[in-house]
Amino acid sequence: MVGSIAVLGGGNGGHAIAADLSLAGFKVNIFELPQFVGESFREVMRRGEIEILGKAREGVARLNKATTSISEALDGVELALIAVPAFGHATFAEICAEHLKKASGRPPALALMPGTAGSLEFMKTFREKGVKAPIAETATLPYGCRMLEPAKVIVYVTAKLLPAGVLPARQTEEIVGMLKQLYDEVCPCRNVLEAALNNPNPITHPAATLLNVGRIEYAKGEFYLYKEGITASVARIYEALNRERNALCQTLNLKIFECGEQLTEMDRIIQMGLLFGAGCWEEAGVKMKGPTHVRDRYVTEDVPYGLVFMASLADMLGVPAPVMKSIVTLFSAINREDYFAKGRTVEKLGIAGLSLQELEKYLQEGER
Amino acid sequence: MVGSIAVLGGGNGGHAIAADLSLAGFKVNIFELPQFVGESFREVMRRGEIEILGKAREGVARLNKATTSISEALDGVELALIAVPAFGHATFAEICAEHLKKASGRPPALALMPGTAGSLEFMKTFREKGVKAPIAETATLPYGCRMLEPAKVIVYVTAKLLPAGVLPARQTEEIVGMLKQLYDEVCPCRNVLEAALNNPNPITHPAATLLNVGRIEYAKGEFYLYKEGITASVARIYEALNRERNALCQTLNLKIFECGEQLTEMDRIIQMGLLFGAGCWEEAGVKMKGPTHVRDRYVTEDVPYGLVFMASLADMLGVPAPVMKSIVTLFSAINREDYFAKGRTVEKLGIAGLSLQELEKYLQEGER
Repeated sequence: MVGSIAVLGGGNGGHAIAADLSLAGFKVNIFELPQFVGESFREVMRRGEIEILGKAREGVARLNKATTSISEALDGVELALIAVPAFGHATFAEICAEHLKKASGRPPALALMPGTAGSLEFMKTFREKGVKAPIAETATLPYGCRMLEPAKVIVYVTAKLLPAGVLPARQTEEIVGMLKQLYDEVCPCRNVLEAALNNPNPITHPAATLLNVGRIEYAKGEFYLYKEGITASVARIYEALNRERNALCQTLNLKIFECGEQLTEMDRIIQMGLLFGAGCWEEAGVKMKGPTHVRDRYVTEDVPYGLVFMASLADMLGVPAPVMKSIVTLFSAINREDYFAKGRTVEKLGIAGLSLQELEKYLQEGER
Repeated sequence: MVGSIAVLGGGNGGHAIAADLSLAGFKVNIFELPQFVGESFREVMRRGEIEILGKAREGVARLNKATTSISEALDGVELALIAVPAFGHATFAEICAEHLKKASGRPPALALMPGTAGSLEFMKTFREKGVKAPIAETATLPYGCRMLEPAKVIVYVTAKLLPAGVLPARQTEEIVGMLKQLYDEVCPCRNVLEAALNNPNPITHPAATLLNVGRIEYAKGEFYLYKEGITASVARIYEALNRERNALCQTLNLKIFECGEQLTEMDRIIQMGLLFGAGCWEEAGVKMKGPTHVRDRYVTEDVPYGLVFMASLADMLGVPAPVMKSIVTLFSAINREDYFAKGRTVEKLGIAGLSLQELEKYLQEGER
């Protein structure tokens, strides 16, 4: 049985995971990199507690540790959950690899929540540093949540389905078994790419933001994307993106998970329902304000780390992805950044140029 | 001196041209195709008059003729102004060619207002039918106008600069001289492509509409694009589109006309100012409601006939146009139409595969 857990990342997601799992009876260490420590994490370190309310467990959660030392966080734990934005993956891969190289004993299993193919980036760094550890990733963060004030987080909605893949995939049963002790909703993926491609955010966030950019800026942030922004034309773009994603999945022999019939019409339209299940629109969407500007993570994370990743993989496999690329192109112009160059490409994931068979083998074995 | 004029097209533009030029003292016939006759044109035919108010001449204009017979409209006139949406050009080219083939006497000069390269489409049809006549086009309609009620039109703003090109370009002086008798703002272009590429609509309309689609649909049409929709990010897309258009113009040795320093900051931002001059934002933009849906002419005309035309020409000449193509791709997904296939391509303009020299020669001579 999993007893102690490290949560790496001190943002919305890290707070919710650490608090909820502490209340569930696990011994939880929470870690943040010194340079990323914000007001809330400072408060968590001071008090050693996080208050949580909403749709997960509610209460004041006492943590085992809140620390900026990676060895304090990881030593002796069986499982490390990494809940940081995709643009933090490279940095966290680096410090995890450096620590594991020096550490004695069996390394913990790592799980990115979510990964968006970040497990491949971790594995590339681990191979370069000569470290061996299995790396899982889930398709989404288990919580739709926001920090309310320092050391206090609210959970608007929880995932009803939590697809999880493991690199190497031959260790899936073992690692997914551990994750299932934490979250009953966890279900095994064929490999980490299946988990990555089931992340709904790159489908949902950039398209809906793009088609509402004028309003977001004119209304100066008084904007609720899920309530105001998901219209018939946005749904058409979702359909087009999903067709491209499905073609990619078919080529890779992967599936898109679905929650099924219990979804309301609105949940189906906004797509968030795919993993978060029925009722999320009423429960979460209408309450969650934002995005308030075009450098929100709905753009700066989901475009370069979501759409660029899928488009790059599609290019490598000869699958057309014109709608994905169009959104990347337009946000690159809006934010004057080359998201294709900056984003998560097959090169950065260490899988560029692999044939379908070589890719399958690598995903299965974790070795080239 | 030009005495009598035919105005072909019975929409907003046709009404404004016919009324304004009648009040200026020209003898004006207005024509509409029977299948396009709407409520207002029926009223114009019944009364023989159009009321006009706003920024052009004001009053009740008595027309020479309002007709659905092309020979009644064209016989005896020196100049025919064609003010129809770009998707009407093929049909009007056909009926003009059929008429001119049978007609005796010197054919009138034709001018598309605006053309967006439609003059090339006209010329292709004319060559196929064995008809010879010069075809001009302007960069924009001379009026920003809307019908208020049947046979009554309001002009919000008039063009301060009216670039006009002629096919063949060797007849520029003659034909532009005729147009200048109607509109003092007319200035000669090097050729029809220069006029086409100076149309500001394909730069302005689709991008601003796309980035406000969610609002347009959520607000159910209660939307003023120029007041609410032109934000910093929209301006960034304009810049990117303009960079692509300028690269295309440089390759073709063409220039973009500018109104110059009198433009207000807001006019520069919304780009409409480029030809309509200072004060257009206050005078027109804030009063003009719309678009109210994604099948507005801001999309259905300016995407397939504006952006697709520029992108197709850019492809032929090896000039990159990724932002133009991205907007086309996304509106194709939204409206479930292949605008690349449906739109105005170099094939449909009869110039596919021409080298830069061959293209120059054709634009100059009107013959291959």
